[in-house]
Amino acid sequence: MTGQLSNTETWSLLACSVASLGVLSNTWSSDGAPVFASLALSGLAFSSSYAIIRWTGDAFIRVGRKGKDMSKKQPIELPEMMGLVSALVYLLCIIAFLPFAFKHDIVAATSGGGNKDVVIEAQVVETGRFLHRFPLEKLASYGFAYGTLATVIILGIIDDFFDIRWRHKFFIPAFASLPILGLYFVDFGVTHVVVPIALRPYLGEIVDLGSLYYLYMSAISIFCPNSINILAGINGIEVAQSIVIAMLILLNDAFYLVPSTPTLHPATDSHLFSVYLLLPFLGVSFALLKHNWFPAKVFVGDTYCYFAGMVFAVVGIMGHFSKTLMLLFIPQIFNFIYSAPQLFHIVPCPRHRLPRFNARTGLLEPSKATFSPEKPLNKWVGEVLKVLDTLKLLRVEMDEKGTVVSTTNLTILNLWLVWRGPKREDRLAVEILAMQTFVGLLGLAVRHRLALVIFSQDNL
Amino acid sequence: MTGQLSNTETWSLLACSVASLGVLSNTWSSDGAPVFASLALSGLAFSSSYAIIRWTGDAFIRVGRKGKDMSKKQPIELPEMMGLVSALVYLLCIIAFLPFAFKHDIVAATSGGGNKDVVIEAQVVETGRFLHRFPLEKLASYGFAYGTLATVIILGIIDDFFDIRWRHKFFIPAFASLPILGLYFVDFGVTHVVVPIALRPYLGEIVDLGSLYYLYMSAISIFCPNSINILAGINGIEVAQSIVIAMLILLNDAFYLVPSTPTLHPATDSHLFSVYLLLPFLGVSFALLKHNWFPAKVFVGDTYCYFAGMVFAVVGIMGHFSKTLMLLFIPQIFNFIYSAPQLFHIVPCPRHRLPRFNARTGLLEPSKATFSPEKPLNKWVGEVLKVLDTLKLLRVEMDEKGTVVSTTNLTILNLWLVWRGPKREDRLAVEILAMQTFVGLLGLAVRHRLALVIFSQDNL
Repeated sequence: MTGQLSNTETWSLLACSVASLGVLSNTWSSDGAPVFASLALSGLAFSSSYAIIRWTGDAFIRVGRKGKDMSKKQPIELPEMMGLVSALVYLLCIIAFLPFAFKHDIVAATSGGGNKDVVIEAQVVETGRFLHRFPLEKLASYGFAYGTLATVIILGIIDDFFDIRWRHKFFIPAFASLPILGLYFVDFGVTHVVVPIALRPYLGEIVDLGSLYYLYMSAISIFCPNSINILAGINGIEVAQSIVIAMLILLNDAFYLVPSTPTLHPATDSHLFSVYLLLPFLGVSFALLKHNWFPAKVFVGDTYCYFAGMVFAVVGIMGHFSKTLMLLFIPQIFNFIYSAPQLFHIVPCPRHRLPRFNARTGLLEPSKATFSPEKPLNKWVGEVLKVLDTLKLLRVEMDEKGTVVSTTNLTILNLWLVWRGPKREDRLAVEILAMQTFVGLLGLAVRHRLALVIFSQDNL
Repeated sequence: MTGQLSNTETWSLLACSVASLGVLSNTWSSDGAPVFASLALSGLAFSSSYAIIRWTGDAFIRVGRKGKDMSKKQPIELPEMMGLVSALVYLLCIIAFLPFAFKHDIVAATSGGGNKDVVIEAQVVETGRFLHRFPLEKLASYGFAYGTLATVIILGIIDDFFDIRWRHKFFIPAFASLPILGLYFVDFGVTHVVVPIALRPYLGEIVDLGSLYYLYMSAISIFCPNSINILAGINGIEVAQSIVIAMLILLNDAFYLVPSTPTLHPATDSHLFSVYLLLPFLGVSFALLKHNWFPAKVFVGDTYCYFAGMVFAVVGIMGHFSKTLMLLFIPQIFNFIYSAPQLFHIVPCPRHRLPRFNARTGLLEPSKATFSPEKPLNKWVGEVLKVLDTLKLLRVEMDEKGTVVSTTNLTILNLWLVWRGPKREDRLAVEILAMQTFVGLLGLAVRHRLALVIFSQDNL
């Protein structure tokens, strides 16, 4: 990577920026829907993070943020932690979007015109504005969402620099989620959930979880960032899986937003909030993916994984659709459960579990955890592994006595290679992403079809 | 530094934490004033950052965040950037404070009791609460203040790691101030200022600065962090000057808050907000000062300077008392103007301008910028320096031809040493802080006495 944009890139990015600026200025002057402003800002976010990633790569290498890509025949040093650029551009976008999000309300509140169905009450405040109808609760949401994302970026940077132990860094996102949990406590405070029909005889129709609900939200915000962070190890997979999740959430939002009835859905605001947070996320992520896709020119770092996961957690929690969100995380949930024996050291866990690169074939193969005679595998665990081998859920190797001496590492990437044989890195990524998209679509279908069976009504 | 707390420290910190927790729990159950909660949280903030700074110092050294203290006879390596710990604990405090800040409103909004003068309107929202009277605009302020501070911490970390060029990093705080400027735009939008009497014939009583006002606020938020960052170079001065400024702002807040009339001052909320933001700041800063004071065990890093300056900028901007704030920055403003010839390279600027340590006497002396014959000083600049020397505003050295060959570096610390002779490092710090306190108190006196002359009424 030379650190320079090619001529084609320069002109394409400029064209994209100029078009975005045009849409943006048009949206502002015509009082257009904020969604167009959000789209235009995403375009700007894409072009600027694309260029900045290219320009600053060398600076990251200079301060030691670099690593070798071990799944290549000639590993070269690549800049690490480049997701930081995307994350910062994203923060800027969210702030730049504020005036567009609230322009309509500012106009309605100041002039009294422009929005004739607003009944303005005689409550002139010191500033000379009618603030009565101003959606301050939406404004507070933006502030705290921003605070949470900025915090997770701080902690991601600290993690990338300090190389924190896994069992500590697992809880990092919990700290970062405090701003939105604080907001939730102060502002909404809704801690009841609708009970599935089967359990209603015992629990009633609605149950108030109280402080358990905060634990639940905290768990969501710990899970999303970490689950993206551990479904990693091949070029592009962290960013691309995040892009797939973002698009699936947008699809779900569209169900609520695309007008099918004359009245707006009561959850319109929540889902608009989600759209406004996800569009610029897609902008900065596509720019990063272009550099991180096989063969990678940059690595994204834990900063990006935390940041991406926290965007989803914020959107799900503030939008009150965290259960739906979990349906879109099925491959990550599977990967987490499947990894658990190694994460909790029931099965020995090597430092890196990414698929092994076979330099002869140029293909990736499942990597293995081997058990030395000094540190043998627990006998019962060995038996369970053999059963899982029979079920084709991993592949073990045994010595002549039938003792398990190695197993493929317990990640979804290795499992996929066990099932479908050695693959080139980009091919593996594409197949995993296709599977993820399919499972996600299925999840959404189940969500909106079967909700009737479980909850007696879909909230769509 | 062993990285361990002594027994005395452990017990003192535990006692402080337990007392703080007691006050906190009492405040919660008795619906006490949030200011007690804020005080208690500051106690917790002090003890926890004190301990964490001690425990994590070695980890900072391990990842290369270290530097030598050149003003000591035996310079040893000290951890750098430890202000990050204070900044993170501070963020946590601000969030933990939210439920206390809003408890009264939550109670009033939910039960309808507890606050009998609130007229509850029949506006039951979906959550079952009367949200009508909930001060959401205050909540949004917290969110965006948090966002701004988290952003400036990110940028401080990046600056500390990447060693950004001075002319770039000068503008770093402008990025960080965007959240509060965005909030200001969307929510308050007050861009008029009261005109001093002398100018009223030309400008009228109130003038609307429009977008200039945003430039002004942006300038404040660029100035505060940078001015603290350049009044640096001896043990403890960055933290101690911030503590002095924070206490002076608190004193000014007290003028508005301490009841002198039966009705509350209209600016009560702004000044309470300032108190709530500054008390925990004092907590984390005192813990840092204990480690950073002469002889320093840790360095604070640009992260702390940016963070501290931005706390003041946020408080001043959101509290609408940015002009008063500037009166408390007079030594920093003087230092900035005095430094300008070197900052803008009119006078050559060496890499470091901190006072020179004389190992023989153990005292600090003014450091010098020397002008080589290859790169001589502009003749006219030399003449100006000679005049300034006569005015005792610096000290030059001349060769036999009367050409200026060196000048003391243009910082307030060097100037103080020119005036008052060589001093030990802590003595210099104490004198500068005493001067700063005196000037600040004078500033406040002028503010509240002379305001009548300039603005026809004091807003007190």
